[in-house]
Amino acid sequence: MKFDIYVIQPKLENFYLDAIKEYEKRLTRYGKTKLHLLKNREQLSAKLVGSSFTVLVTPTKQTISSESFADKINSWGISGTSQVAFIIGSDLPEADERLSLSQMDMEPGLQVALLYEQLYRAYRIIHNHPYHK
Amino acid sequence: MKFDIYVIQPKLENFYLDAIKEYEKRLTRYGKTKLHLLKNREQLSAKLVGSSFTVLVTPTKQTISSESFADKINSWGISGTSQVAFIIGSDLPEADERLSLSQMDMEPGLQVALLYEQLYRAYRIIHNHPYHK
Repeated sequence: MKFDIYVIQPKLENFYLDAIKEYEKRLTRYGKTKLHLLKNREQLSAKLVGSSFTVLVTPTKQTISSESFADKINSWGISGTSQVAFIIGSDLPEADERLSLSQMDMEPGLQVALLYEQLYRAYRIIHNHPYHK
Repeated sequence: MKFDIYVIQPKLENFYLDAIKEYEKRLTRYGKTKLHLLKNREQLSAKLVGSSFTVLVTPTKQTISSESFADKINSWGISGTSQVAFIIGSDLPEADERLSLSQMDMEPGLQVALLYEQLYRAYRIIHNHPYHK
């Protein structure tokens, strides 16, 4: 599966970029991820043209566990979704799904690092691989 | 207020240590934080002797928002708590409180970075300061 992560934030802290790079590397055996840092909502609209499936990452009370997130990714795969676009730092009323990683607000870099960690964790769960670094 | 963060994990990823350092720096105007990386549960027990107030950080469905976390810290201060020990990566049935940052499992470094970010965010909320880097 291919994951595009769109963030409405032109720059992230270096330590979060390093964390993201590390998870991206770990994820290569399971799928392809690409981070897109965008200047504004307009850039997002232009990028999303033709994108198949959109997931808005937003803090609400409807949080899920890492296991449920793994189930979700698995079911996307089963239903034939081959490309998922996660959107962070923007509203997107027309998103296909909403995902709450936490009820807490976080700065964008931290949200992205957490999303990457959960994608990696999800694949470890799906493939019944122990979680390690 | 003084915060001790105890983590049962002798080493954390460098990028998380860098993130923690950054939040520690930002937090100096509000309070004192100290990270303790421990080898095992026994080291924790030894460290906690005499510690006033213990909060176990653990992923459950009972998550709270950043605003509620700020209220919690504020109320600890009002009730005269001057030192809070957060514990990550261990069980501690005797903890005074339990705190769920997210329902998701995370590697220890990420949990610590998130806790530090929320401590900083809480003080920005308490003092009605805008959140910035």
